[in-house]
Amino acid sequence: MKERRELVQQGFRKLQTDIIAALEAEDGKGRFTTEVWERPGGGGGITRLLTNGNVIEKGGVNFSAVFGETPEAIRSAFGIGAESFFASGVSIVIHPENPMVPIIHMNVRYFELSDGNAWFGGGIDLTPAYVFYEDGQAFHLALKEVCDRFDPEWYGLFKENADRYFRIKHRNESRGIGGIFYDRLNAREDKDFERLQEFSLAVGNTFAPVYTMLMNLHKNKPFTPKEKFWQLHRRSRYVEFNLVYDAGTRFGLETNGRTESILMSMPPVACWESNFTPEAGSEEEKSQHYFTNPAVWV
Amino acid sequence: MKERRELVQQGFRKLQTDIIAALEAEDGKGRFTTEVWERPGGGGGITRLLTNGNVIEKGGVNFSAVFGETPEAIRSAFGIGAESFFASGVSIVIHPENPMVPIIHMNVRYFELSDGNAWFGGGIDLTPAYVFYEDGQAFHLALKEVCDRFDPEWYGLFKENADRYFRIKHRNESRGIGGIFYDRLNAREDKDFERLQEFSLAVGNTFAPVYTMLMNLHKNKPFTPKEKFWQLHRRSRYVEFNLVYDAGTRFGLETNGRTESILMSMPPVACWESNFTPEAGSEEEKSQHYFTNPAVWV
Repeated sequence: MKERRELVQQGFRKLQTDIIAALEAEDGKGRFTTEVWERPGGGGGITRLLTNGNVIEKGGVNFSAVFGETPEAIRSAFGIGAESFFASGVSIVIHPENPMVPIIHMNVRYFELSDGNAWFGGGIDLTPAYVFYEDGQAFHLALKEVCDRFDPEWYGLFKENADRYFRIKHRNESRGIGGIFYDRLNAREDKDFERLQEFSLAVGNTFAPVYTMLMNLHKNKPFTPKEKFWQLHRRSRYVEFNLVYDAGTRFGLETNGRTESILMSMPPVACWESNFTPEAGSEEEKSQHYFTNPAVWV
Repeated sequence: MKERRELVQQGFRKLQTDIIAALEAEDGKGRFTTEVWERPGGGGGITRLLTNGNVIEKGGVNFSAVFGETPEAIRSAFGIGAESFFASGVSIVIHPENPMVPIIHMNVRYFELSDGNAWFGGGIDLTPAYVFYEDGQAFHLALKEVCDRFDPEWYGLFKENADRYFRIKHRNESRGIGGIFYDRLNAREDKDFERLQEFSLAVGNTFAPVYTMLMNLHKNKPFTPKEKFWQLHRRSRYVEFNLVYDAGTRFGLETNGRTESILMSMPPVACWESNFTPEAGSEEEKSQHYFTNPAVWV
């Protein structure tokens, strides 16, 4: 399915480029570095990193397209017998400096096997330190609108997936305020492939307008050391989620993936304070409430 | 085996108290807080934490003794049929502020089942940001001397266990410079129980003199921002090891343990810088070499 692979890569490469242009424009100072890498077994990727921008303290927008013999680890993890595979995707994590600007994560991916099976997966989710209700609404509304263009049931299902997935079980709280998360959308038939590729790119194209809007809204807000601490505290929960639960992270680390690409999701700085509880009635406590009890946003 | 349980708890409680006295004396400012907790199913513990001392930025010296019906998670993880269990231990992690003072970790524990099986486990390991060869030698020599008093083969075996266990596979490096690590030392027979309890306490009693010596040696050394950064960088590797690989941490989190007690091992602050590599010929690079290639110390 050579043509599909070309189409997928073209779409994801353009997505990477467009998102980077939008992020650099909104940041106003930071520029993404470019590292092109090759995978010994086939394929490779383009890792793009920005550090110490005006708004973005550390961010990665990575593209990869890898193929070859299906590694034993993938075969056993997914119960796959197929001899060869192709996988391509775009992964983003942005850690802003200002605690009022949320962390964002996005991943869109396509997977194809030599036995003819193929699927799309992905999602976007938002992790504010301070939850602004209007932001959550705008974010979820944008995702709902994209989903609704394809299937009126998807937003509800994918939002629930995200609430279930981004749960830090040992803290009994969510990483952030969720978003959408979907996997194994069957793309075996050509008509499904076309429709799902369109959906993947539509999800991907929601990223830049929504996130630059949030950056713009909050990037110049003043903040106190106490507010900065709260951000570093919430970042520690981000680390805990990614290293303990995130399937992609754990799978990547266990299968000798590119560690630096996998762990670009780690925040630049994080704090662990024992037994920290926000003050009653504080903004931090209000935000914590959203993490403990996932909300209905739209 | 009520008498054993009393003896074990007495020994571990005294160990906790003695170590705290020695750490507070050497720190000169910090005082450990005390939190007594109870486990709904039986037993409890004493969590003691020190933050923002002169030398210790964050440290925990925890005692616990829990018993009751063997939880399903423990039964399946250890292949155990026994209906009830007893477990007691002391766990320590100290994160010093000065990057020249190493992080240290110790755990000594006793486990007993209603079917008569019983064993001791534990270990001590050192995680310096800057490796001073003489420190590594003194540390390993002290551990070897303790082991040698009980069995001339133990130090070699337990040192190898530690090198194997404290490996951050996805970084292809060790967490620090190792130490000793042992588990399932059979204490079913009374004579073995007595000898192994003596060994556990001997290991435990090595902690205070060795670590306060290292604190004393380095606590007043000046350090640069670059050296502080290297410490925060190495702490991120400590986080990665504990959350991705450490059996006790993962088991605790997965079985609804006391999250704050389990994660007292997290550093107060940690930094992740993408693609960070120490400069050729620098002290950081020399230390990194010890993490990549575990040394023979004695």
